[in-house]
Amino acid sequence: MNWDRPTLTDSGGYQVFSLAKFRKLSDEGVKFQSHHDGSYQFFTPEFVVDIQRAFGTDMMMPLDVCAPYPCSREEAEESVRLTTLWARRSKDQFLKTQSNDRKQFLFSIVQGATHKDLREQSAKELVALDSDAYAVGGVSVGEPVKDMFEALEWTMPFLPENKPRYFMGIGLPDQIVKAVGEGVDMFDTCLPTRMGRHGTAFTKTGRVILKNAENEKSQMPIDDQCQCKVCATYSRAYIRHLLRCKETFGMTLVSYHNLYFYINLMKDIRRAIEEDNYQSFQEEFLRKYRSELVEVK
Amino acid sequence: MNWDRPTLTDSGGYQVFSLAKFRKLSDEGVKFQSHHDGSYQFFTPEFVVDIQRAFGTDMMMPLDVCAPYPCSREEAEESVRLTTLWARRSKDQFLKTQSNDRKQFLFSIVQGATHKDLREQSAKELVALDSDAYAVGGVSVGEPVKDMFEALEWTMPFLPENKPRYFMGIGLPDQIVKAVGEGVDMFDTCLPTRMGRHGTAFTKTGRVILKNAENEKSQMPIDDQCQCKVCATYSRAYIRHLLRCKETFGMTLVSYHNLYFYINLMKDIRRAIEEDNYQSFQEEFLRKYRSELVEVK
Repeated sequence: MNWDRPTLTDSGGYQVFSLAKFRKLSDEGVKFQSHHDGSYQFFTPEFVVDIQRAFGTDMMMPLDVCAPYPCSREEAEESVRLTTLWARRSKDQFLKTQSNDRKQFLFSIVQGATHKDLREQSAKELVALDSDAYAVGGVSVGEPVKDMFEALEWTMPFLPENKPRYFMGIGLPDQIVKAVGEGVDMFDTCLPTRMGRHGTAFTKTGRVILKNAENEKSQMPIDDQCQCKVCATYSRAYIRHLLRCKETFGMTLVSYHNLYFYINLMKDIRRAIEEDNYQSFQEEFLRKYRSELVEVK
Repeated sequence: MNWDRPTLTDSGGYQVFSLAKFRKLSDEGVKFQSHHDGSYQFFTPEFVVDIQRAFGTDMMMPLDVCAPYPCSREEAEESVRLTTLWARRSKDQFLKTQSNDRKQFLFSIVQGATHKDLREQSAKELVALDSDAYAVGGVSVGEPVKDMFEALEWTMPFLPENKPRYFMGIGLPDQIVKAVGEGVDMFDTCLPTRMGRHGTAFTKTGRVILKNAENEKSQMPIDDQCQCKVCATYSRAYIRHLLRCKETFGMTLVSYHNLYFYINLMKDIRRAIEEDNYQSFQEEFLRKYRSELVEVK
């Protein structure tokens, strides 16, 4: 891969939940069938730490249990119980395998589905383990946006402000802006490139669906306020033509614009925080941004 | 498109032959059914000049008739007759529509299939029209490489040395080197990117099939003699992994390497010509390059 900047790797907990054909949980670990080759795999918290040590990952996630949406109270309780048990074993393995060659960091992941008391319990149990950083997990699994933000609000008060707090798998620009307002420091999302491949571009006033007929002859850039090289060079009509012909260059152009948009959104967010101006930045951003409130998986 | 370097556009003659569902020729033009939307289209030589004037193309091709391989003597004769007739009409239209705003150039395209006398006849008829440049067409249509080079050898003696001579749709690196030895100045080919998308890389010693099992754990670059940034950064094993996962980045990396290879091949060719050293360059290149003599369409 030859990537010399920071890397974060997920543990497989979410992937086993969302991609594998079969998942059998026990205190020891999780058995599942690979969607790649049908092979059976057994992951333990220790193995997942070891493999991320081998990768040389900077930010490591422990194996967790992501409950589905919707799920029963019992399933949510069990996901919290196993996630805490495994977080403890992950931390032990992490301490046992520390080296001076490379400093790595181990997160822990709060679960608890859409239950306020379970979110609190999970957060407190994990904070007692003194992780390097904390993630809010079990979100972006199909629940309404309102439930996702409730899970965040129920969790954040119990996570220490002096350590990174990470909202996993989020999200759309307005969701990021709101979550930063709740104290979140870190995000991950595939949306800039996935939406880019499908021809949807982000702007400060909302999304542009490039394939729409209204763009057929538009000589406008994707966003006339944008400084990126795609907006400086190509018209909506040309990009729409590429997308309709399934020329991969069209997907590349929209993805490039979207990454530029997200990177600049995060720069704007950092600047507003530094200038102690976040509340008015957030209000202004949300006023201009027309979220379609579409659930994007 | 916003491309500020030279552009060449084909006339549609070859595309109608190879892509359309239906083709009906008359002295007036060609009727065909679009493979995009099933619509019926009628192209005349005058329309094809006009549309390339509108594009602002630097190098324009006239509408020609590309005979299939194999074809009857009668089909070959008819393709020469119509191609000459249309070349004349194209030239008339080209002269009528000349503007001082933008200098454009009109080629003509030699046909004649695999018949020596027809190649000579076609070339002489077109040279009499005093085109800006000449193309050898009706090649790369499924014929054996030997026949393709015979068509070239039968044509080149009748094309003026002081005008560009263009071998259409060629080709593999060793074919380009041989054709330059015959006096060809220009080529067009999709092979660097098409082969790149399929995971085949070009080197001075032949092709590398990256998906082959032998590359599974290879820490070598595609080509350890290559100075491109792909070869400086990524191993064969990593690129093979990307290709097998159908990550488009893998196709991008191999395409990048292949374009670098072709651009440098053409630089080497120009240098050898300038140093009046082409014969020994060609022998040395062909000695090292293991052509698989595979017909690549």
